Amino acid sequence: MPDALERRYRWVKQHSALDEDLGDAIEVIAEDRIGLIADITKAVSADKTNINYIQSWTEFDGASHTLVQINGTQDVNLLFKEISAVPSVKEVYVRPTFRKIWGKRVIVVGGGAQVAAVASGAIAEADRHNIRGETISVDTMAIVGEEEIAQAVRAVGRLHRAAVLVLAGSLMGGAITDAVAALREEYGIPVISLSMAGSVPSASDLVVSDPTEAGVMAVMLVSHIGRFNLSNVQGRRF
Amino acid sequence: MPDALERRYRWVKQHSALDEDLGDAIEVIAEDRIGLIADITKAVSADKTNINYIQSWTEFDGASHTLVQINGTQDVNLLFKEISAVPSVKEVYVRPTFRKIWGKRVIVVGGGAQVAAVASGAIAEADRHNIRGETISVDTMAIVGEEEIAQAVRAVGRLHRAAVLVLAGSLMGGAITDAVAALREEYGIPVISLSMAGSVPSASDLVVSDPTEAGVMAVMLVSHIGRFNLSNVQGRRF
Repeated sequence: MPDALERRYRWVKQHSALDEDLGDAIEVIAEDRIGLIADITKAVSADKTNINYIQSWTEFDGASHTLVQINGTQDVNLLFKEISAVPSVKEVYVRPTFRKIWGKRVIVVGGGAQVAAVASGAIAEADRHNIRGETISVDTMAIVGEEEIAQAVRAVGRLHRAAVLVLAGSLMGGAITDAVAALREEYGIPVISLSMAGSVPSASDLVVSDPTEAGVMAVMLVSHIGRFNLSNVQGRRF
Repeated sequence: MPDALERRYRWVKQHSALDEDLGDAIEVIAEDRIGLIADITKAVSADKTNINYIQSWTEFDGASHTLVQINGTQDVNLLFKEISAVPSVKEVYVRPTFRKIWGKRVIVVGGGAQVAAVASGAIAEADRHNIRGETISVDTMAIVGEEEIAQAVRAVGRLHRAAVLVLAGSLMGGAITDAVAALREEYGIPVISLSMAGSVPSASDLVVSDPTEAGVMAVMLVSHIGRFNLSNVQGRRF
């Protein structure tokens, strides 16, 4: 197992929506201007608050939306005031964090029929886990073409809260296999492959023949609840 | 139709992964320090480049990962050099944008059995659209409890690239209905509801009895291809 994969997996597996301090999120709506994000982050850092996630984008109406997730703040109300005082800021809200609501993400990529079958298993299993207090979401992308799938696989490493990737198809190899190696080695994200033609299965952490079971196992693999652990099944075929 | 919904929907509907200038993304891995994001955004703005999305988070290994999506840059190589020169930056990569790879997001929230059925329809239809050059992904969350679902519905407004929400359950009302109103009026995101007990259907843009069809219609609703348009079916039941 690549070092990044081993360390990241241990970190993902430990995390539970049940008992972790998930911090707060602050949503800021402002008129877009140069230096806005710099000013917002400065206002947050002044308090010695640690930013563990920030995202900012321009909405359809041209307004700038910024979400700052923090933990360790002494006083969220003080922070609220300081951000409200930043020039061009119009609205500020305190929100629950994405980690609390959407939690760990199981990502399924491949051909429509098989993606739907894997997703169905993963959603049913995530439901059972979420009822017990976890938050596991299942995100999918039906996509065709070696280069397009390879790009999507690499992009999983840049998706916030991505916990595991399931590749659902009947033939994957070449650039996709290289992308699987990069995802595991550089970003530390484990990959489950359906039993399929091409070289992807041999580059993956786990090969599962039945798509429903692949989806269920993906959820079990990243869940805080239960004994299923990658270190016990790595390299196996089911 | 609320004003924000009408304007945002028109904007989402127009967008196509096929013909739009989707810009570039730059991925930055750095040692975390106070002021890092401010320095990176300053380096980008120096060039008068417009940042249309930025996200930054601390990874499992303590490193700071930042993704900056830009358009209108004169010279991505110059930008690359300037970001590389920011103190504590270790690695810089040019990547395709999320909009290009993952595109518009159909979000499905509710009970496991029904979420899986809606997702199955949406994934099959997204596959057909993506083969024709679009990028539509389907993201799901199986979740139980009025307050938990209401929070997830509100959080859809803070999800990047969220295009439409499908509520898949047998009984939803109360706080969930308030959240549906807020999502439509404040964030401008359309909501499809299965035909179910409770007040959510009457607060939604579209009510669909069959979950597979609800998933298919959600994709059609946000797709650039085809004639299906919210303005023609708003308020209808199928």
